[in-house]
Amino acid sequence: MNTADILLIGGTVITMDDAYRVIHDGAVAIHDTKIVAVGKRADIEGQYQASQTLDCNGHYILPGLINAHTHVPMTLLRALADDLRLDVWLMGYVMPVEREFVNPAFCRLGTLLACAEMIRSGVTSFADMYYFESDIAQATAEAGLRALLCESILKFPAPDAPTYEDSLAYTREFIQKWQGHPLITPTIAPHAPYSNTEETLRRSGELAQEFGLPLMIHIAETRREVDDSLALYNKTVVPWVRDTGLMNSKVIMAHCVHVDEFEMRMMQRAGSSVAHCPSANLKLASGIAPITQMLEMGINVAIGTDGPASNNDLDMFEEMRLAALLAKVTPPDPTALPAKQALTMATRNGAKALGLDAVTGSLEVGKFADVIVVDMQPLHNMPHFTISPDAVYSQLVYAAKGSDVRHTICHGKLLMHDRRLLTVDETTLKAQAADYAKVVSEFLREREGNPLSKLVAVSVDVERSESFEIQVKARLEDASIVENVLSHKDVEVVRAVHYRQYDTYFLFDKPEHGRVRYREDDKIDGNGNVEGVRMRLTFTSGEKERAFNEMILLSRSRFIAPASHPLRFYQEYFQASTELTLQKERRRWRILYKGVLFYINIDRMIKPAVPGLFIEIKSRTWSLSDAEHKAAMIHEMLNILGISSGDVVHEEYLEMQMAQG
Amino acid sequence: MNTADILLIGGTVITMDDAYRVIHDGAVAIHDTKIVAVGKRADIEGQYQASQTLDCNGHYILPGLINAHTHVPMTLLRALADDLRLDVWLMGYVMPVEREFVNPAFCRLGTLLACAEMIRSGVTSFADMYYFESDIAQATAEAGLRALLCESILKFPAPDAPTYEDSLAYTREFIQKWQGHPLITPTIAPHAPYSNTEETLRRSGELAQEFGLPLMIHIAETRREVDDSLALYNKTVVPWVRDTGLMNSKVIMAHCVHVDEFEMRMMQRAGSSVAHCPSANLKLASGIAPITQMLEMGINVAIGTDGPASNNDLDMFEEMRLAALLAKVTPPDPTALPAKQALTMATRNGAKALGLDAVTGSLEVGKFADVIVVDMQPLHNMPHFTISPDAVYSQLVYAAKGSDVRHTICHGKLLMHDRRLLTVDETTLKAQAADYAKVVSEFLREREGNPLSKLVAVSVDVERSESFEIQVKARLEDASIVENVLSHKDVEVVRAVHYRQYDTYFLFDKPEHGRVRYREDDKIDGNGNVEGVRMRLTFTSGEKERAFNEMILLSRSRFIAPASHPLRFYQEYFQASTELTLQKERRRWRILYKGVLFYINIDRMIKPAVPGLFIEIKSRTWSLSDAEHKAAMIHEMLNILGISSGDVVHEEYLEMQMAQG
Repeated sequence: MNTADILLIGGTVITMDDAYRVIHDGAVAIHDTKIVAVGKRADIEGQYQASQTLDCNGHYILPGLINAHTHVPMTLLRALADDLRLDVWLMGYVMPVEREFVNPAFCRLGTLLACAEMIRSGVTSFADMYYFESDIAQATAEAGLRALLCESILKFPAPDAPTYEDSLAYTREFIQKWQGHPLITPTIAPHAPYSNTEETLRRSGELAQEFGLPLMIHIAETRREVDDSLALYNKTVVPWVRDTGLMNSKVIMAHCVHVDEFEMRMMQRAGSSVAHCPSANLKLASGIAPITQMLEMGINVAIGTDGPASNNDLDMFEEMRLAALLAKVTPPDPTALPAKQALTMATRNGAKALGLDAVTGSLEVGKFADVIVVDMQPLHNMPHFTISPDAVYSQLVYAAKGSDVRHTICHGKLLMHDRRLLTVDETTLKAQAADYAKVVSEFLREREGNPLSKLVAVSVDVERSESFEIQVKARLEDASIVENVLSHKDVEVVRAVHYRQYDTYFLFDKPEHGRVRYREDDKIDGNGNVEGVRMRLTFTSGEKERAFNEMILLSRSRFIAPASHPLRFYQEYFQASTELTLQKERRRWRILYKGVLFYINIDRMIKPAVPGLFIEIKSRTWSLSDAEHKAAMIHEMLNILGISSGDVVHEEYLEMQMAQG
Repeated sequence: MNTADILLIGGTVITMDDAYRVIHDGAVAIHDTKIVAVGKRADIEGQYQASQTLDCNGHYILPGLINAHTHVPMTLLRALADDLRLDVWLMGYVMPVEREFVNPAFCRLGTLLACAEMIRSGVTSFADMYYFESDIAQATAEAGLRALLCESILKFPAPDAPTYEDSLAYTREFIQKWQGHPLITPTIAPHAPYSNTEETLRRSGELAQEFGLPLMIHIAETRREVDDSLALYNKTVVPWVRDTGLMNSKVIMAHCVHVDEFEMRMMQRAGSSVAHCPSANLKLASGIAPITQMLEMGINVAIGTDGPASNNDLDMFEEMRLAALLAKVTPPDPTALPAKQALTMATRNGAKALGLDAVTGSLEVGKFADVIVVDMQPLHNMPHFTISPDAVYSQLVYAAKGSDVRHTICHGKLLMHDRRLLTVDETTLKAQAADYAKVVSEFLREREGNPLSKLVAVSVDVERSESFEIQVKARLEDASIVENVLSHKDVEVVRAVHYRQYDTYFLFDKPEHGRVRYREDDKIDGNGNVEGVRMRLTFTSGEKERAFNEMILLSRSRFIAPASHPLRFYQEYFQASTELTLQKERRRWRILYKGVLFYINIDRMIKPAVPGLFIEIKSRTWSLSDAEHKAAMIHEMLNILGISSGDVVHEEYLEMQMAQG
């Protein structure tokens, strides 16, 4: 007799191996972390003696499901806000709460909650994208699940990194710390093409390649993402990403709702995997991904729940079912994505996407014992017909539920036994989650009148602008010296315009509410006539500015939106405690200095009536090192202009107005 | 203190009343069959003393869900066959099994199983369409659920009625027997426009109106149904149905996937309700119903699971969630069909559709106590935010599961307590269902080689033809006497053609396998040349024919399909035990005799070489009484022709060939 630790005896073994063997009255023997035998009950019983034997009669024994795309700590944001416009949901609720609350403790608790939920519904491996992934790793290992954990890279400041340089550094450390862990594969996730720059995508890809790791990214989730990519780069999303070198690594592309055949071929050739998230794609109105075509083209398509804030749960049974159902409508074909293929996506394909197909995803001798046992005889899944060999898959995909999972084993360890969790304390977790929700609700109630939320609620196309604004302002005695720069050999003038600007500032009692500017830009032609008018709203957080050299280096949240309503509307809507108006004449040049984009403004203040002229030199960037580089270039231009540090003005125009009262 | 039978104390009461009151720390008092109080826990506790008190802390208390369209006995056909073409699924599996197995015992068992499943997942009322509804009523009342039970009317023979005349008679008796029952509302369901005639729709509507009952019908489930309706009647489905008078009753229209705005207006004006079945519409690739538009137009849209053979369960939580998600994709709008509205559809709108809005669908004093208690704190539905007043709906629709239902009460009676069923014996039901499935699997295995299944599997557009074929055949000495009829004052000749027909019959050892005919019709022009060729397959069951007068009255299953493959293919495919060929010259007249359609054939047999000529007079119909009427008319025509009963031939041409054989 051989020794085993756990014997699963009886029931129907659905191996999901290459031959898709289904063994009735079967058994699985587990020793230490691995599967040591799969076969007929009678054979295995005769060969193995185990310290623990689970009677699986009337149950399915199958590989644990693999959730190929999620954001596990977002369990703590479940049902925070639903049925809202995407921008309202994201910028009005999720982002402000994340900015305020996402920290290591939040991530650990959210991860434990998520792991508990996934263990209860038969998931043994998942791929995550979030912040503080090192803490997520710790919680995941504690719960006993297998995971590919992908630290997010954004061009914006993230909850765990003020700049993407910090994120990249964090990720390197995270990988070095967790590499080689039996359950955890640490890696990187540039969040999405639109939330990254060419540089951050390239550097993310380089980091993954350096360590030989797969990576994850959101791709073409919305139609707008594709339109923006075409407008900005004259390329759809996948070719743009490919050109950064990112696809030299094995990539898990989440969503891929709006990819065309050309892009699919590119993905297929690069060996990229797709994480299909049907619930989230419907809930956020993104669309239906062309999964059938991808599968036909030989792309490895897995299934993910996405984060619980946009699903609203982590139930892979629901996701498999929806994937199979949804594939049948466009084009209409009831034979599309049959149950067997849906289960393949949720097991084998998931393992392949995570780079773990050698060790999990099917019940085979030598693989890790990631196994679930599912009740095959609940009321809602009776009776069973044996006429089709694929009926077992049909039962699992179309009628089985997460709550039918009875035992969950990962890496040879029993994580749930008879629906009782063994590695996490459900009661404590739920109490802690409830406490968090109370604080978050309070916070949101507090900021109910928050101008940014209000701005997002009434605007379309709100955009977050670059993290860093580098700018200098100086008094100018003589406007003509600007020619020193404009005619300089290193300068190319791209565009010159003349504006008359009317600004209305809405200021609020609480400094944390920031401020909103309503600006009317009247464009003036050569004859002094108004040739065009543009209205825009800008929200700034009013966060502390950081000085750098002699220049001002701003690192603050700035949101811009076209103003589609008249000023009167916003006056009533924002209910500011103070309202201030400014007026100025601005001549603006868009220039390239040594090939880098800058703006030069020559301003004459009308209101407040400040005598003389001001010059401003400005640039923006997502990158801290780039900000430093640009600050140095501004310094060079000041020298060319002959402006010394004594001329520099640190006051904003708004402050001059406030001083005048 | 007032007396109550059941007190539900604590938890969040979601009333779904007109004001959509949500009562935190609330309570509901039930006396006998009715709700006697809904309010704050403290108030109710002080006023009522009850024999049974259920602590509902940490739970939602809400109205039982209403499943507005299903076929409950089809639990016994769950996962019989999935992921197949609709016609293969229906004609290859479901219909043959129904023909063989659907009887009162089947319907009672299937209904009990379904009721048990629905009680477990929080459904307290449903609307059914099937056969033997009187037996379904008995089982439903036994289980303790409320239901609108709709006996199917089809132009085809049904499992419980050889003709629709029998179905209508059965329905009248069923209504008379069950009318006034506290739980059961008996009524009628003409199955669908395409499976009915103008007469059966009209008579169904009249019966419903006579008793003042709502009725149910499948409407515009597939694109093909609309195309066929346009081709046949030059009308889309709803106007065609309206013109039969059916919509003078309150109608539950199941599916309505392919209805246009004109039809929606018609539905709205008639006060029709829609039963939206998103899972089944996806699974059978029918499409996505335009629910948002219907709701905007003020149509009462409810939600149904459809039968478990096409879903594959009866889970209204899944259906609500899918309805809410699916509504957001076309046109893309994440605010479409918010959770609150989805729950309204599954409660209030369901009650209205079933004509039961005065007595159920919300928690209000005076309504019947149809109440469910749902765990609001399972792991997969934590934490809770209180920032949005609609968060409770979100929690219920996007993350709650059927398995979170803890208690189910219908008509004041506790049907499930702490997930234990009190009115049905789950274990026995499951065992009986398993026995059924074994027999059905055997039956299907037996008929694996069944020619009809094989025909359906390789053909497109297989159609079932009329139930009754009325025909007479006689020897004819002189072809010219046919002019007696053709020139008769009561006869109008619509069309005359000349065919050369080559028939190949595939016969099988088992008589129950029926027979298949492959026919090549060569159409001959005036010069004796072939001007067109048509190939068709016909399956006949070979069931016993019934004699009527001197004529043959056939009532047999007959399926016709265009033959898209060459004869050689079918020879290899059907593997007949005997193959026989026939050849004849046929002159055929399509005539109207007293305005009624008949066919007259003058046949000369080439193979077998039977001397002389034969005349056939034929007609077809779905109706038994119409068949009798047409038989009498054929008799009149025989008199006009001067053909006496002595000339009548009862042998088929095939039998003549076999005799020669």
